[in-house]
Amino acid sequence: MRDEKKQQKEALKEEMLRLGNLQRECKEEKIPVYITFDGYDGAGKGVQIGRLMQALDPRGFDVYTGDKDTEEEALRPFLWRFAVHAPADGRITIYDTSWYRRVQADRFEGKLNEKKADAAFEDICAFERCLVDGGTVLIKFFLDISEKEQEKRFKKLLESKDTAWRVTEKELARNAHYGKYKKLSDEMIRRTDTPYAPWYVIDAKEKSGTALMVIKTVADVLEKALEKKRAGKEAEIFEKPVPPDRYEKGILAKADLTKRLEEAEYRKKLDKLQKRLEVLHGELYRLRIPVILGFEGWDAAGKGGAIKRLTSHLDPRGYKVCPTASPNDVEKSHHYLWRFWNHVPKAGHIAIFDRTWYGRVMVERIEGFCSEEDWHHAYREINEMEAHFVHSGALVLKFWLQIDKDEQERRFNDRMKNPEKRWKITDEDWRNREKWDAYVLAVNEMLEKTSTKDAPWIVVEGNSKWYARIKVLETVADAMEKKIKEVEKNRKR
Amino acid sequence: MRDEKKQQKEALKEEMLRLGNLQRECKEEKIPVYITFDGYDGAGKGVQIGRLMQALDPRGFDVYTGDKDTEEEALRPFLWRFAVHAPADGRITIYDTSWYRRVQADRFEGKLNEKKADAAFEDICAFERCLVDGGTVLIKFFLDISEKEQEKRFKKLLESKDTAWRVTEKELARNAHYGKYKKLSDEMIRRTDTPYAPWYVIDAKEKSGTALMVIKTVADVLEKALEKKRAGKEAEIFEKPVPPDRYEKGILAKADLTKRLEEAEYRKKLDKLQKRLEVLHGELYRLRIPVILGFEGWDAAGKGGAIKRLTSHLDPRGYKVCPTASPNDVEKSHHYLWRFWNHVPKAGHIAIFDRTWYGRVMVERIEGFCSEEDWHHAYREINEMEAHFVHSGALVLKFWLQIDKDEQERRFNDRMKNPEKRWKITDEDWRNREKWDAYVLAVNEMLEKTSTKDAPWIVVEGNSKWYARIKVLETVADAMEKKIKEVEKNRKR
Repeated sequence: MRDEKKQQKEALKEEMLRLGNLQRECKEEKIPVYITFDGYDGAGKGVQIGRLMQALDPRGFDVYTGDKDTEEEALRPFLWRFAVHAPADGRITIYDTSWYRRVQADRFEGKLNEKKADAAFEDICAFERCLVDGGTVLIKFFLDISEKEQEKRFKKLLESKDTAWRVTEKELARNAHYGKYKKLSDEMIRRTDTPYAPWYVIDAKEKSGTALMVIKTVADVLEKALEKKRAGKEAEIFEKPVPPDRYEKGILAKADLTKRLEEAEYRKKLDKLQKRLEVLHGELYRLRIPVILGFEGWDAAGKGGAIKRLTSHLDPRGYKVCPTASPNDVEKSHHYLWRFWNHVPKAGHIAIFDRTWYGRVMVERIEGFCSEEDWHHAYREINEMEAHFVHSGALVLKFWLQIDKDEQERRFNDRMKNPEKRWKITDEDWRNREKWDAYVLAVNEMLEKTSTKDAPWIVVEGNSKWYARIKVLETVADAMEKKIKEVEKNRKR
Repeated sequence: MRDEKKQQKEALKEEMLRLGNLQRECKEEKIPVYITFDGYDGAGKGVQIGRLMQALDPRGFDVYTGDKDTEEEALRPFLWRFAVHAPADGRITIYDTSWYRRVQADRFEGKLNEKKADAAFEDICAFERCLVDGGTVLIKFFLDISEKEQEKRFKKLLESKDTAWRVTEKELARNAHYGKYKKLSDEMIRRTDTPYAPWYVIDAKEKSGTALMVIKTVADVLEKALEKKRAGKEAEIFEKPVPPDRYEKGILAKADLTKRLEEAEYRKKLDKLQKRLEVLHGELYRLRIPVILGFEGWDAAGKGGAIKRLTSHLDPRGYKVCPTASPNDVEKSHHYLWRFWNHVPKAGHIAIFDRTWYGRVMVERIEGFCSEEDWHHAYREINEMEAHFVHSGALVLKFWLQIDKDEQERRFNDRMKNPEKRWKITDEDWRNREKWDAYVLAVNEMLEKTSTKDAPWIVVEGNSKWYARIKVLETVADAMEKKIKEVEKNRKR
């Protein structure tokens, strides 16, 4: 028996050394690693994470706890904090209690009904696939102990006043209903054990043995990921779908760009709409409804002007304009959706994106900043991310500001002539213009593939700025009103 | 009268255009701009910020509200969020209710006694000087309205149910005691109206006139800042102080590097200390005491090893190791202390910095990464930042791990020979070694100028790793124990 212990200790030491080396190699290969710990209360997540940390270079990882929400977190979609804390290239994120709390402890406590639980499972699977397809190595641990073992551990903690405070009422309740809790946990594992994100269920009865298993598993997975990365993308070549003809003469061609509005009418409507939006903004705040508005469109199509009119009467403490430029180096070292997750608004607030995550299927596609496979995946990933926002109660709208090529040229020339506006126009704008046809194809495909019931695209006929602005403001106000009514109706029930 | 209104409108339009242009120039010149709005309740901060935003390019600014704390903020020093949200080069941060809440509304509500108020004033002045010396343009607005005007505005808001919810109980209380509140506000302005950060007190009775004043003031200040920046650093040449001889034979020379510890004793003490630290960590958490530990020292002096032993038994959810490498581009575009502010621990948590903000007066000084003036300023700036942490209840300790030049060479060679450790040593380490004497001077000056009563430096004799680790752990444990007793004593009173 003592020999066995000694052997185990030796093995652990070896695995720790091995893991330390693999961590350095993953850093060199810029592989992001996400490690989560869930399981039964008292199974020793904290202890195991502590052991794991001892094997790692502290300069390369961050540890977070997901067992309760801060105010900032409680006001956002439940995956938000996990997306924001996702590891950069070459780094490791360790989560003590992950997104699975949602479909385990929260569900046990009755915080979500069956419909919401289904949505949560869908969102989790989509989130994990999106991470893994983006190159993140995801390692999910479930630490397993029996009802009896759990009871024993709680008893021991409760015996001393130095440790008794660690056992919460909630944990005792979960122990008292271990059977029910186990059923939920089993279902959770069953529904989320996927080829791209398998579960590692570990018997956590004996601390040292568990530590060896955990550390060895992490090392094994990293070794495999390194091999794969070094071998280059696998032989399985991405078969790109044949684009249907309809993308050439697609949604954009149907926009009636002769639509106009005269100044007098514009001023009258604008004034009314801005006042209406001011009131609606207050109601959204009181009902804690988050709003996400995305703006895309040709250069000089009038995004900035529309946003300015939209926000002019809003309380500045309740909205934020999030401009999207080319990513900085911190953003580049993360998943392409990461920088947008960072701007997900709190419940009751409005986030307005001036250019959006759709850059992936437009500029990145056309300029070759990502692979064909990457942008083909993006349609689904984006739809799923937006669905998650909607599941969390958000109003999501996306505007495409459409002008024709002549109108763009007129506006470019206008800007060149006007010293107050010249800064708005760059050589790049002229270069982009040369790719007009490629953009038409990409935009048509995007509009078709990502206009969903809950997060629709609105094509705005933009040759007349006055018309376009009113259409944007009206659409936003109507959608807000509808959402408010819906939420109020559901509350009354 | 109508003519006057029209004239004002024209003037406002002009000033908005001027400000828009100046914003772009500040972006080009990489000037960070911090604009704060304080004043009396109902003075229209929100409205004025809204107007200001309309004049600005939304891609260049962020707006925050400081009127209440999130949980994350409440658990940190009161300047934390304002330091973290400080603008990057070329960007603008706008705060609706700034750090002055602390010495205005909070003080009014009796949240801080006179001693704490004095400390807060000191911290605020230090913080502002630090920002301004670092190149930030700081514009502080105080919107002034009379007691009567305030009452009138509240009444109007209370009349409609769409706006009544905006008036809080607290605001009504402050109106009821306008005189007392005014006295505090006047004192606040008096004590913080400095040449480097003057107040702009604006009569806010009339909205449009106020908007014109605010926008014109911002434009004027930016114009002046641009002129100054373009003229290059002023003629006033920085007179560097003559370094006293004692820095050559300073504190470092006094370290007795023959101090040793044998393995058996080391193991015994280590085991005891780690268990003691585990218990103390729990108490710190319960008493909500934040702990900040900084580690500096020669390459290969054993910082990593000491940190590893220090943390091995701590609950991983309650501490964080923050390694400091060369700054990335986001960090480079901020004040040099910004990246450290980002890691200030929550109350009850421990932040361990593996290399620290003292890089400013060591590597940055020696390699010329900042000007002479910059690093001379840094001693005071750092002392004041640490004082602020201490004022907020933190335990702050800084360790210098000292070895001699021969010992370093031995360890470098050891690392080169050992394939498991070779990654730890780089060409840069050898290059730094050549600058040993310059570092001795810099370190001696640093130790002398920044070892304060509340945030002392501890020189650790490090030739014997075992001795050094025990000294670190013992010092930390003793300091924690002392702090805990102090806090418990103060609570009982």
